[in-house]
Amino acid sequence: MKTGDASRFESQLKFILEIDKLKTIERRSYPIGLDRLENSAEHSWHVALMAQVFAEYADENVNLLRVQHMLLIHDLVEIDAGDTFIYDEVGNRDKAERERAAADRILSILPKDQARELRTLWDEFESCDSADSRFAAALDRLMPLLHNFHTEGRSWRQHGIVKSQVVARNRSIAEGSQALWEYAKDLIDEAVRLGYLKE
Amino acid sequence: MKTGDASRFESQLKFILEIDKLKTIERRSYPIGLDRLENSAEHSWHVALMAQVFAEYADENVNLLRVQHMLLIHDLVEIDAGDTFIYDEVGNRDKAERERAAADRILSILPKDQARELRTLWDEFESCDSADSRFAAALDRLMPLLHNFHTEGRSWRQHGIVKSQVVARNRSIAEGSQALWEYAKDLIDEAVRLGYLKE
Repeated sequence: MKTGDASRFESQLKFILEIDKLKTIERRSYPIGLDRLENSAEHSWHVALMAQVFAEYADENVNLLRVQHMLLIHDLVEIDAGDTFIYDEVGNRDKAERERAAADRILSILPKDQARELRTLWDEFESCDSADSRFAAALDRLMPLLHNFHTEGRSWRQHGIVKSQVVARNRSIAEGSQALWEYAKDLIDEAVRLGYLKE
Repeated sequence: MKTGDASRFESQLKFILEIDKLKTIERRSYPIGLDRLENSAEHSWHVALMAQVFAEYADENVNLLRVQHMLLIHDLVEIDAGDTFIYDEVGNRDKAERERAAADRILSILPKDQARELRTLWDEFESCDSADSRFAAALDRLMPLLHNFHTEGRSWRQHGIVKSQVVARNRSIAEGSQALWEYAKDLIDEAVRLGYLKE
């Protein structure tokens, strides 16, 4: 590195290498047509690109760059905390605590200004208290519904999930996009009709 | 879908589901510490996030949203055309043609305005004729160097790649970021010194 601050660059590089581990974190979803679980890195790519395609369905004005940055980093904490299944009541009890500790460690690898910037984005995503985070969270919820529907409810059936659970855990999609929630509700009803999901 | 144009939404959704296939496309890189090849979806996530962290090393003013959009979509064509190894001289002869046909098919699933927008970005990425695309391409080249170095040259050794090939195929990093190319050159020299790469 002939230009700039070498220790700054080293910190950034260390972060880039550290987050390679997100490719090892298995979710509970199956990509369509694949006989393996999805990992959190490829999921993050998919929802970030979905944000670009579905931006017009956000109910409020959103800053697409911020939405996509949130989606690119939202699962980094799983490197330490693992993926907590949305329907796992026990795991969800201490999820916030485990993930905060993970954010503390992983983001602090970065130079302070960038660590702060990414932490602000991640906290915002977690709290869903802004237009950007509500829309980002809506996309993050919608994607597993799509995967479940298009794999004949594979993950729902495997874990004995029923319709009321799916509705309860996903109705917050409406806070980011009423249009996408209307679509999701139809998809859930159709999944029940087709036997992919128990009533 | 209670609001908007139903056929527009259906096209967008079909695209989102189609691109799930990028998770099946194997590259020639190994993620650090994993005994499997990297796929192009998780790679796209990694370089898009790298753009955010390394933005300050772009030599020209870049629009980070455009750089990241390019990186999120740059490998979609591999769904049809497969990943062409950068050192595969035969495969690279008709790569451009195969990938253009793939872009024609895959992007045309989208509504016309979005297909055009993504095609413009993809063409720009391929031609490297703008500040945004030169920087995006630099990151896309740098990442496999990092993976090779941190897996003791696993992919280089497996394919009998030598230093002159690595330098020739990666010197274009300098067109997007002189600083990152200086770093890459040092990394290549160090790889030779450590026996990860043949002189």
